[in-house]
Amino acid sequence: MKDFVTIRDFTREDILHLINQAIGRKNNHIVQPANQKKIASLFFENSTRTRVSSETAAINLGFEIIGFSGSEGTSVKKGEPLLDTAKMFQGYGVKALIIRHSLAGSARFLGDNLDIPVINAGDGSNCHPTQAMLDLMTIYEKFHTLDGLKIALVGDLKYGRTVHSLLQALELFDTQVTLVSPPTLGMSSWRVEQYEEHCGRTVKFAKTLKEIIPTQDVIYMTRIQRERFPSGAEGEIEYKKIGGKFLLEKNMLRKCLPSLAILHPLPRDKNNIEVHPDVDSTPYASYFIQAENGLYMREAILQALIKRELKGRKTNSSPKEKLFKKMKVIDGKKMGEKLVYRLDTGILIDHLAAGSAIRIHSLLKLDQIRDKEIVICSNIRSNKLGRKDVLAIHDSKLTPQELYKISLVSPNHTINYIEQRQVVKKGKTYLPTILKGHLICQNERCISRKYHLEYCKETFIVESQQPLKVHCHYCELLMTGDEIEIDS
Amino acid sequence: MKDFVTIRDFTREDILHLINQAIGRKNNHIVQPANQKKIASLFFENSTRTRVSSETAAINLGFEIIGFSGSEGTSVKKGEPLLDTAKMFQGYGVKALIIRHSLAGSARFLGDNLDIPVINAGDGSNCHPTQAMLDLMTIYEKFHTLDGLKIALVGDLKYGRTVHSLLQALELFDTQVTLVSPPTLGMSSWRVEQYEEHCGRTVKFAKTLKEIIPTQDVIYMTRIQRERFPSGAEGEIEYKKIGGKFLLEKNMLRKCLPSLAILHPLPRDKNNIEVHPDVDSTPYASYFIQAENGLYMREAILQALIKRELKGRKTNSSPKEKLFKKMKVIDGKKMGEKLVYRLDTGILIDHLAAGSAIRIHSLLKLDQIRDKEIVICSNIRSNKLGRKDVLAIHDSKLTPQELYKISLVSPNHTINYIEQRQVVKKGKTYLPTILKGHLICQNERCISRKYHLEYCKETFIVESQQPLKVHCHYCELLMTGDEIEIDS
Amino acid sequence: MKDFVTIRDFTREDILHLINQAIGRKNNHIVQPANQKKIASLFFENSTRTRVSSETAAINLGFEIIGFSGSEGTSVKKGEPLLDTAKMFQGYGVKALIIRHSLAGSARFLGDNLDIPVINAGDGSNCHPTQAMLDLMTIYEKFHTLDGLKIALVGDLKYGRTVHSLLQALELFDTQVTLVSPPTLGMSSWRVEQYEEHCGRTVKFAKTLKEIIPTQDVIYMTRIQRERFPSGAEGEIEYKKIGGKFLLEKNMLRKCLPSLAILHPLPRDKNNIEVHPDVDSTPYASYFIQAENGLYMREAILQALIKRELKGRKTNSSPKEKLFKKMKVIDGKKMGEKLVYRLDTGILIDHLAAGSAIRIHSLLKLDQIRDKEIVICSNIRSNKLGRKDVLAIHDSKLTPQELYKISLVSPNHTINYIEQRQVVKKGKTYLPTILKGHLICQNERCISRKYHLEYCKETFIVESQQPLKVHCHYCELLMTGDEIEIDS
Repeated sequence: MKDFVTIRDFTREDILHLINQAIGRKNNHIVQPANQKKIASLFFENSTRTRVSSETAAINLGFEIIGFSGSEGTSVKKGEPLLDTAKMFQGYGVKALIIRHSLAGSARFLGDNLDIPVINAGDGSNCHPTQAMLDLMTIYEKFHTLDGLKIALVGDLKYGRTVHSLLQALELFDTQVTLVSPPTLGMSSWRVEQYEEHCGRTVKFAKTLKEIIPTQDVIYMTRIQRERFPSGAEGEIEYKKIGGKFLLEKNMLRKCLPSLAILHPLPRDKNNIEVHPDVDSTPYASYFIQAENGLYMREAILQALIKRELKGRKTNSSPKEKLFKKMKVIDGKKMGEKLVYRLDTGILIDHLAAGSAIRIHSLLKLDQIRDKEIVICSNIRSNKLGRKDVLAIHDSKLTPQELYKISLVSPNHTINYIEQRQVVKKGKTYLPTILKGHLICQNERCISRKYHLEYCKETFIVESQQPLKVHCHYCELLMTGDEIEIDS
Repeated sequence: MKDFVTIRDFTREDILHLINQAIGRKNNHIVQPANQKKIASLFFENSTRTRVSSETAAINLGFEIIGFSGSEGTSVKKGEPLLDTAKMFQGYGVKALIIRHSLAGSARFLGDNLDIPVINAGDGSNCHPTQAMLDLMTIYEKFHTLDGLKIALVGDLKYGRTVHSLLQALELFDTQVTLVSPPTLGMSSWRVEQYEEHCGRTVKFAKTLKEIIPTQDVIYMTRIQRERFPSGAEGEIEYKKIGGKFLLEKNMLRKCLPSLAILHPLPRDKNNIEVHPDVDSTPYASYFIQAENGLYMREAILQALIKRELKGRKTNSSPKEKLFKKMKVIDGKKMGEKLVYRLDTGILIDHLAAGSAIRIHSLLKLDQIRDKEIVICSNIRSNKLGRKDVLAIHDSKLTPQELYKISLVSPNHTINYIEQRQVVKKGKTYLPTILKGHLICQNERCISRKYHLEYCKETFIVESQQPLKVHCHYCELLMTGDEIEIDS
Repeated sequence: MKDFVTIRDFTREDILHLINQAIGRKNNHIVQPANQKKIASLFFENSTRTRVSSETAAINLGFEIIGFSGSEGTSVKKGEPLLDTAKMFQGYGVKALIIRHSLAGSARFLGDNLDIPVINAGDGSNCHPTQAMLDLMTIYEKFHTLDGLKIALVGDLKYGRTVHSLLQALELFDTQVTLVSPPTLGMSSWRVEQYEEHCGRTVKFAKTLKEIIPTQDVIYMTRIQRERFPSGAEGEIEYKKIGGKFLLEKNMLRKCLPSLAILHPLPRDKNNIEVHPDVDSTPYASYFIQAENGLYMREAILQALIKRELKGRKTNSSPKEKLFKKMKVIDGKKMGEKLVYRLDTGILIDHLAAGSAIRIHSLLKLDQIRDKEIVICSNIRSNKLGRKDVLAIHDSKLTPQELYKISLVSPNHTINYIEQRQVVKKGKTYLPTILKGHLICQNERCISRKYHLEYCKETFIVESQQPLKVHCHYCELLMTGDEIEIDS
């Protein structure tokens, strides 16, 4: 039988022969003549430089590439969940998986659910860490250090994911960062805030490219994309105008430092060029070297991951985390007696933020309880807090999940466990470092949003308990007290 | 000369040098430094799983892949006939060719016209035999047999080509098949009929997924596609409703057999999910293992084809086939005399089905003959048949092709060769097992249909002469007496 | 750390480790486990045959392929200049670059700006030299020579780039070429002219395919594309009609030479077939062999370029080129005196074509000069020329660039350098063989046109000074005196 066209061509024996062969191969009883090492390269979004240099890096390290570029001809178009697609490639025995995807947090989601290393080649407008690494390599190659430099990030700092990752990296080195962008395309304030908090240095701002040229060691240019402006003629005019203001030309470089390095993640856009080709031949143009470095850096990253060489600074929920901090019970009786309605046994939550008890009542779904007495005291006077709320539930216990909800609404509170009108335990609930569920990420392009149908469980990292600050484990968005949305 | 940009750059000597080099390479006088083994992978239609696992299988066996995925950037868009494209790849020295194409029968057509093995990776909504093989492998791995199992096929059984191939395979094993599908997406009756005829077992039918869960060893789920329903809002509602009815969730599995295996060819569709992700973590979910098995099975198939290890059950026209069965001539004179008009020499076809002589007259284009006497007797009484037709042609012979046409219109008939008013030979024409031309396949998506412009000659396999049953050699469609269309 | 998802996962030490690893790899201190040889394959336009055979050739020679097919998922869609894209691939260490692009001259532009060999796989409707080479190989294989043959080129000779390159190659061999095409799709007259001039033979023309069949050794068929005709029903009718006239069928070959070779670059178009499949089985059909030869020829070309084996006939500006040819000064005084206004010191350009002085005045931007006396004499009588113009500029010198402009407007002229009313030097300016700038290529699809934003400097090869004939270095278009457009 020459071809394999239809099952009706084959005998029962043929079929069983093939099955036994396949199982033998799976269990390594039949050794492949050339069982190649493979890397999966899944580019759901447009890419040339990142894809080609990543794949070339893998080829140079002796890997074969499997995967796709653009989701046009793939099962993604048939509505396949991302994790199903990725699991398939893991099943085919790849040693690592490279992914570019339009949803923020997509790479993290896969990394958490696969055994193989996942390399983020850009997740929506969140980050692009391999690009940041090759940027740093290019700077290091020129200055032999990453400390003591003045670095300006120029252009679209809002959607440009390369500068997001670069800024995160610069936290770790002693650099003076200046941000230069059109008003509508500035770096998100939470990114700036986080940078300043993490490294204790402040960021400078400038309005024009011209004013910063004489002082900088590194000018990092980015592309301003047409789609960030309104469509139609007016948007076009605005776009051309803004683009023109952030155009770097050779004649602007007369007063720059002699060692200036101009970087650009490329591609630049010939329809609204941001670095004029006349800069290419100056000694300041580092962007072609930068592009070339992408190959070597991606080789280094791939090798380091496969050999598990990187330590990382991953956040872990310690098993020793104290989620309930006991307070000393001074006068066991007092608490129960102060209430309008006496509580024999149950829980009394004191020192809640004024006005928060009703919200907690709703989140704990106490309105669905009919067989237990519940007392809410709102806006009552407090020595410590001015005004406070108190909530008491008769004959009840609270689960850790319910206690987290109380902490999310009112980080300050005192929980009193009462038995026979006596406070027997007293304390305060803290949120775990890694919080699963409870909150909804406020980023519409985050993979954890339900309507993306990716079955990705919301997860948050608690950066501070009071004031409450959490960031999304997937898309990295920082949210504070007012900005969080509790999943009811 | 560094580049090869235009012919005007080169000398006569350069050109002759290149030609001699190329001919030397072709004739193996110049040995390639690394003449790689290659496989052609031609995916004219969307695919991720099948394409990637097929290509990975080839890579694991030491092959390089050439070809394309999606016909967008290819000569197909320029109207190239399929066989031209395939011949090109054969010319480039590939060891086998893998094809997915939207026309039913495309893989068969290539297999018949190429010297290298052709692997069908899905031909329209006809079949997908490598998928059926990995399905069987997954079942075999779990149950260590393919016999004695209860297997339900669920979902779109009409257009879902994976279940078509699976059903053909199950013919060969002792299985109890149950079909569960929406009314409009049921398995074509000819496929059921053929299954039952080939294996002598009957198929069961069920209307809901729920009712079959407790009894099955294997539940094979398939995707119900949006495009099978009318467009617009009403179609959307219908689609969601149907989809919901064929959704498998964890809570439905409480009463299933402990060894139940749930299979799914994947991808599942997150917009109208058919196997809820909560099933993924149950011990019944076999679909990720199934996907992984695709790699090993496709390695086994590729290897077996290249080594020509499979026997197959291919239909061949035996050179000994008797296409004319002689009858004994009892009374040579009688036949000629009964006719209204006497026949001296020629052919008299007796016992034709009543009303069929006019049709045969037309198909044999006897209306274009003026110089020979033709007699048609219609609906005349017959002892054997009640009523019959008789057709007589003076001084003529019939070609085998003309005789086949008679058999197609009236399988029952008696042909009398008459010389000098004597019947000298008498008998009946049978159709050859493989019938080229004469009929038109009734499947509009069959590659043999003329309007597809693929220059693929219609070919049919005669399964039964009386009643007449043929199936299309390409798209496998079964047609019986009433359904066939004779090519006039 | 398993994954590489965000920079915030990594420590300062991790980052510095990766940078040092990457720099080590770049500088070869860290040797790659399998640093593969690579070829870049950049197909910005649709292709199957050329792309697959080029890539297969590279694979056979032991290369890995990086690149893309179709510009859909690439940075080209983001407006990246072509040279940036190409430089990136050079940076990734490829040994050669294969390009197909819609702009004429694109391959030449890259070849001039990269260090690695560039192979033109089709540049707009200009040329396709690797195809011409495999065409020649196929002819040579059959006839064991390229001389003494009669070759007809049939079909779309205007846009069909394969025949453009083939005609250029046939210049070098003793062949009788016949051109057969619809009136609107004839070979551009400059291509025919250039062929005839270069080889000293004339081309024949024929109106129908039928009339040339009996006499030809080679018939080279090409595809007539739908898009060359007006859209709509009338265009469709015209297209079908024309196509039908240039259809080659088996029954037309009864009177052909027994050794006739029919070639076709393929693909043929099944919707308006130009070589009927019934020709495929005749001994004249060479097009499948031709397609196969593509592989071997492209291996030969790639190997020859990498080994720098081809001599080429590249045009070079010799450093010894005489751009100013001195004439003997006979009577130093005379020239200045004849003018209406006397010239003490300066330049007097005599014998200009009648009417050209105003044009030169404008091109040299003399209208912007206020402090120097300028005299223009127009249409004055001349013994040699009938009528002539004279232009005198007081106290001035002319740059070489300004002198070229004069030669472009009036190739015939005499320049007199005058000091103290004496002609001290006299002569004529010639254009250099390679002329950068000054002219605008008249081909709208030429890469040197400014609106393509590719920053490609206009460059022309001067074929003849008088009459003026130049061809574009990029798109090869020939332009003569009337057709040139001077860049003002």
